[in-house]
Amino acid sequence: MTRRLQSVERMPDTVPEVMFQRVVIVGPGLIGGSLGIALRAAGLAGRVVGVGHRQESLDAALELGAVDEATFDLEGAVADADLVVLAVSVGRIPELASRAAPQMKNGAVLTDVGSVKAPICSAVEALLRTPSRPRVRFVGGHPLAGSEKRGVRAARSDLFRDALCILTPSRVTDPDGTALSRVRDMWQAVGCRVRELPPELHDELVAEISHLPHVVAACLINAVSDGALDLAGSGFADTTRVASGDPGLWRDICMANSRAVDKALHTFAEQVRTFRKALASGDADAIDDCLRGAKERRDAGFR
Amino acid sequence: MTRRLQSVERMPDTVPEVMFQRVVIVGPGLIGGSLGIALRAAGLAGRVVGVGHRQESLDAALELGAVDEATFDLEGAVADADLVVLAVSVGRIPELASRAAPQMKNGAVLTDVGSVKAPICSAVEALLRTPSRPRVRFVGGHPLAGSEKRGVRAARSDLFRDALCILTPSRVTDPDGTALSRVRDMWQAVGCRVRELPPELHDELVAEISHLPHVVAACLINAVSDGALDLAGSGFADTTRVASGDPGLWRDICMANSRAVDKALHTFAEQVRTFRKALASGDADAIDDCLRGAKERRDAGFR
Repeated sequence: MTRRLQSVERMPDTVPEVMFQRVVIVGPGLIGGSLGIALRAAGLAGRVVGVGHRQESLDAALELGAVDEATFDLEGAVADADLVVLAVSVGRIPELASRAAPQMKNGAVLTDVGSVKAPICSAVEALLRTPSRPRVRFVGGHPLAGSEKRGVRAARSDLFRDALCILTPSRVTDPDGTALSRVRDMWQAVGCRVRELPPELHDELVAEISHLPHVVAACLINAVSDGALDLAGSGFADTTRVASGDPGLWRDICMANSRAVDKALHTFAEQVRTFRKALASGDADAIDDCLRGAKERRDAGFR
Repeated sequence: MTRRLQSVERMPDTVPEVMFQRVVIVGPGLIGGSLGIALRAAGLAGRVVGVGHRQESLDAALELGAVDEATFDLEGAVADADLVVLAVSVGRIPELASRAAPQMKNGAVLTDVGSVKAPICSAVEALLRTPSRPRVRFVGGHPLAGSEKRGVRAARSDLFRDALCILTPSRVTDPDGTALSRVRDMWQAVGCRVRELPPELHDELVAEISHLPHVVAACLINAVSDGALDLAGSGFADTTRVASGDPGLWRDICMANSRAVDKALHTFAEQVRTFRKALASGDADAIDDCLRGAKERRDAGFR
């Protein structure tokens, strides 16, 4: 009786469905490697192939179970792929897409994890645009996961749990929404909440919430004297943690999204200017408004 | 044999020395309450008396073991005190010092935990300045502990473990260093590393490392649109955590230290301006320098 009740209430014991027979992850680092680990752990991919350009990283990806096989040969690896994930830095994605797409089979899905979407999406649109419909389907993606660490050694199966993944679908590169649907299912299966946004809006919002804080944290560290840094405690460490991220990666992100990053920095600089005016004139109410408003928004809750 | 070896190696089982027979903590909140708990837990105070102005807070301080007794009567409580700790907000410390000091007994020690030291130290210097030497000894203090939480309910015995406590001794209020020595011993006994700084230098350095990050975090939250806030993840949460602190407390700190806070904000704003110039001109090297330099300083290690 008890056993029957349990077996009715719990989820059915199904073998997880293989979503893609052959997944190629180009750049199995922190993000790509964590995706590989998560896909393999959940049995969501028939086979995961890692493409890289450093033997050491590929060996680590194999050793950590992020991929089933590893190779330097991008064109060869993607030929039979059902899904190709470009998990390299923003600046390299268009070029790798242009090398991968012509080799991919009809109906295969291409996606990426780049932090800036408009330049990538328009480059891939130009690449796949055909009179009728694209042979390869593309949907842009950006899992807002990760940390200040990088490389496959920091990869972990739960990196995407409860993380937000933004997809930026396009009728040019995915007319019938096939790629959108399959890529969305995959990110959800590894734990993400998925949202769809137009690439340009993605870039504006992410400039505010991710690129701006990074630049602010870097400027904050650079503004502090050595003597003051000696006194730093956990508050300063938290405020500046993101600035530990890879400088080259973040330089590319800022440059690829320079217009939106500058707009966010302008709005931020106006806030600082307003605060300084209040401080200079001893306007306690205005200072209070700034600090109280910030606390209310902070406490209203995001993770 | 084993027992003897252990008893040789471990610390001797001495009863901890009572450092102050009667400690009065004015404002047993997060900082004052944690000090009370730590002093009582380690047997460092004969008796800890809490002075407050809200029954509810005093009841909580008693209930949580932060004090042995609690009262509204500041003047009465401090009369027999060996140590009085002013653990209220920066703006109220001079007034409470002026009420407490005349009631305190000869040779008793007065200290505080205010985040801004020059205005407090000069007010207390004016108060205690006598032709020969002060009846009550004062040393300014600032334990850089705490969190965005406040109130005695957030107090804990290990709040000061490995925290830095800055003391700002003065020959006017403590000619023979008695107060410095006793207050230093107390903070070390509850786990702090102690450093001595002139009050003005303290205020400049703490403006950079604590007040500046607070204002920056508040401005950052205020600069972000609601749509972007919806996308916020752990990076944004860390960068802005300190802005959850009590706005009234931080308004008072900024106003009491306005000159140094504005100087720190100016230096910071220059960093932001330099970054924006690099971004506008597409100067990858300059962007790289900023981000790489910040990462190096961040990773060089503070807690």
